[in-house]
Amino acid sequence: MQKNRLEAFSDGVIAIIITIMVLELKIPHGDSFDELKKLLPKFLSYVISFIYIAIYWNNHHHLIHTIKRVNAPIMWTNTHLLFWLSLVPFVTAWAGENNFSVLPVATYGVILFMTAVAYFILTKAIIFTHGDESVLGAAVGKDFKGKISVLLYAIAIPIAFFEPYISTGIYILVAIVWLIPDKRIEKKL
Amino acid sequence: MQKNRLEAFSDGVIAIIITIMVLELKIPHGDSFDELKKLLPKFLSYVISFIYIAIYWNNHHHLIHTIKRVNAPIMWTNTHLLFWLSLVPFVTAWAGENNFSVLPVATYGVILFMTAVAYFILTKAIIFTHGDESVLGAAVGKDFKGKISVLLYAIAIPIAFFEPYISTGIYILVAIVWLIPDKRIEKKL
Amino acid sequence: MQKNRLEAFSDGVIAIIITIMVLELKIPHGDSFDELKKLLPKFLSYVISFIYIAIYWNNHHHLIHTIKRVNAPIMWTNTHLLFWLSLVPFVTAWAGENNFSVLPVATYGVILFMTAVAYFILTKAIIFTHGDESVLGAAVGKDFKGKISVLLYAIAIPIAFFEPYISTGIYILVAIVWLIPDKRIEKKL
Amino acid sequence: MQKNRLEAFSDGVIAIIITIMVLELKIPHGDSFDELKKLLPKFLSYVISFIYIAIYWNNHHHLIHTIKRVNAPIMWTNTHLLFWLSLVPFVTAWAGENNFSVLPVATYGVILFMTAVAYFILTKAIIFTHGDESVLGAAVGKDFKGKISVLLYAIAIPIAFFEPYISTGIYILVAIVWLIPDKRIEKKL
Repeated sequence: MQKNRLEAFSDGVIAIIITIMVLELKIPHGDSFDELKKLLPKFLSYVISFIYIAIYWNNHHHLIHTIKRVNAPIMWTNTHLLFWLSLVPFVTAWAGENNFSVLPVATYGVILFMTAVAYFILTKAIIFTHGDESVLGAAVGKDFKGKISVLLYAIAIPIAFFEPYISTGIYILVAIVWLIPDKRIEKKL
Repeated sequence: MQKNRLEAFSDGVIAIIITIMVLELKIPHGDSFDELKKLLPKFLSYVISFIYIAIYWNNHHHLIHTIKRVNAPIMWTNTHLLFWLSLVPFVTAWAGENNFSVLPVATYGVILFMTAVAYFILTKAIIFTHGDESVLGAAVGKDFKGKISVLLYAIAIPIAFFEPYISTGIYILVAIVWLIPDKRIEKKL
Repeated sequence: MQKNRLEAFSDGVIAIIITIMVLELKIPHGDSFDELKKLLPKFLSYVISFIYIAIYWNNHHHLIHTIKRVNAPIMWTNTHLLFWLSLVPFVTAWAGENNFSVLPVATYGVILFMTAVAYFILTKAIIFTHGDESVLGAAVGKDFKGKISVLLYAIAIPIAFFEPYISTGIYILVAIVWLIPDKRIEKKL
Repeated sequence: MQKNRLEAFSDGVIAIIITIMVLELKIPHGDSFDELKKLLPKFLSYVISFIYIAIYWNNHHHLIHTIKRVNAPIMWTNTHLLFWLSLVPFVTAWAGENNFSVLPVATYGVILFMTAVAYFILTKAIIFTHGDESVLGAAVGKDFKGKISVLLYAIAIPIAFFEPYISTGIYILVAIVWLIPDKRIEKKL
C-alpha cells in the first residue's frame, strides 16, 4: 500500500462529500423571495458542514503528510474516518430541513462526535505504526484541540434535547477553533 | 496505456461509488425518533456496502500494484469489474428500502456474485499477461478466499428466497473474512 | 497548461459521468419480480452508455497520451467534448424511462453524434498544434472508425422516427466496433 | 501543505461541480417534443454554467501554476472560492426551472459576483505570500478583466429586478470575454 494512493483516495472521497451536499440544497418550488428565505436554515447548515469538511480535509492532509508507511490498521482506521464523514451530508440536510430541531441537531452532534473519535483513532494507529518518537507522535502528543472538541460534542448532544440552538452554537464554536491553524505539527516539521 | 492512469481512473470511480451511496439515504420526512428508527435497515445496508466497496478498493489496489503493463484485456476486464461495482448503490438502496426482503436480498447477492466473478476474471487477465511465474501468479495461485466467496454468494442467492436474513448474514460473514488482510500477496512482495 | 492536469481533470469528469448514471437507475417502488422486470429497458440503456463512456475514456486516454503540449484550442475542444459526454446520463435515463421510444432514441443519437463530432474536432486541434507529421497525425490520418461512426449516427437519428429499435441496434453496433482496440495508434507508438 | 494536493483537491471539486449539474437536468415526464422544448431554458442555463465552471477551472489552473508555496491564507481563500463555485449548480437549476425570472437571475448574479470576488481575494492572498515582484504580481497587476467582471455582475444584479433577460445577457457577455485566453500570465511566464 502506497501512501500517495491512500491520500488520493481520501482526497477524492472528501472532495465528493463536500460537493454532493449541494444536491440536498433543493431548489424552491417558486421564485418568490419568501421561498428563498425558507432556504436560510438549509443554507446555514450547508455553510457549517462545508467548513467542517474543509477543516477535516486540511487536517487529514497534514496528518497523512507525516506518514512514512501505510499498513492495514492505518488503511482501516482511515476508512472508518471516511465512513463517519460520509454521513455529514445526511445530517446537514436533515438539520437544515427541520430548522435545527432537537433530534436532527443531536444526530448532527453524534456524527461530529464519531468523526472526531475516528480521527483520534487514526492518529493513534499512525503513532502506533511510526512510534511515539516520530514527528507526529511528538507533535500531537497532547492534542488539546482534538480532545476539547470531542468533549464539547459530548456536551452538545444532550443539550440538544433542551436547547438545540445552543448545541448548534457549540458546533460553530468548535469549527472556529479549528479554523485557527494547528501550528504544532507545522512547527515540528 | 499507463498503469497509473488505470489506477487513478478506477480509484476515482470507486471513490464516487462509495460516496454517492449516501444520497440514497434519504432524510426522513419528520424529525421524530420513530422516523429515525425506520432508517435502521437502510443504514445497515449502507454500512455493509460501504465495507464491501472499501474492501474492493483495498484489494484492487494491491492487485494493480503487481501489474507491470496494461493491455486491452486488463483494461476491459477492469471496466467489467467497475460495472458490477457501480450497481452496488442500487441494490444497497433497494435492500434497505424493503427491510432486506426476498428479491432485493437475492439481487444484492447476484451483484456481489458478479462482482466477485469480475474480480476473478481481472486476476486471470493479469496473470495471463504477466505469466504464471509472476509475483501475482504465484501469490494468488490458489486464491482460497476468492473462490470461497463466490461459492458462498452462489449459496446465499437461492437461500434468500426462503430466509433472506440468512443470506444477509452470509454477506456480512464474507465481508468479515475479507477484512482480514490477504497476507499472501504481501508476503510474496 | 500542463498535459497531466488536462488528463486528470478529464479523467475525473469522465469517472463521475460513468458513475452518477446509476443514480438515474431509481429503485422500484415495491420488491416484486414484476417491478424488477420493468427496470429492464433502463438497465439496458445503462449498460450501453456505460460501455460508450468507457470506450471514450479509453480512446481519450490514448489521444491525450500522444500530446506534447496543451494550448487554448486543445483545452477548449476538450471541454467541448466533455460537455456532450456530460449529457449522456440524461439521454440514457430518458431512453430507458420511455422504453426506447422515438424522441428519446433520436435525442440519444444526437448526443452520440455531437460527442463523436467533438472528439473529431479535438483530434483536429491536436494535429493542428503538433503537425501532420506527428505520431497522431500519421496514426489517425484516415480515421476510418471515427468517420463511419459519425455517419452511422447521422443515419440512425432519422431512422429513430420510424423504427427506434433499429437506431438502438445501430448504437450497440457502433459500440461493438469500438470495443475492438484501435491498433493504428498503438502500432505507430 | 503541498501545492499539488491543493491543485488535485480543487480540480476534484470543480470536476464534480461541473458534472453533477446534469443531475438537475431532470428527464421530462413524457417523450413528446413539447416536453423536450420545455427543457430549453434549463438547457441554456446548463450551457452557461458549464462554460463558467470550465473558465474558472482554466483560470484557477493558471493561477495555482504560479504558486511556489501554500500557506493557510491561500488554503482558506481557495476553499472560499470553491464554496461559492459549489453554489453554481443550485442557481443554474433555479434559473432554468423558472425561465430566467427575476429572483433566480438576480441570485445567479450574486453567486457569480461572490465567486469573482473570491477569486480576486485568492489572487491577493497569493500575491501577498509571494510578493508583488513575483510573476503573478506583475502579471495580474492590473487585472482589467477581473475588475470589469465584478463591476458587470454588480450592475446586472439590480437590472435583474426590471429586465432579467438583460442580466442573463450580461452573464453570457462576461463568459465570452473570459473565453478569450488571458495572455498576460502566459506572456510573463
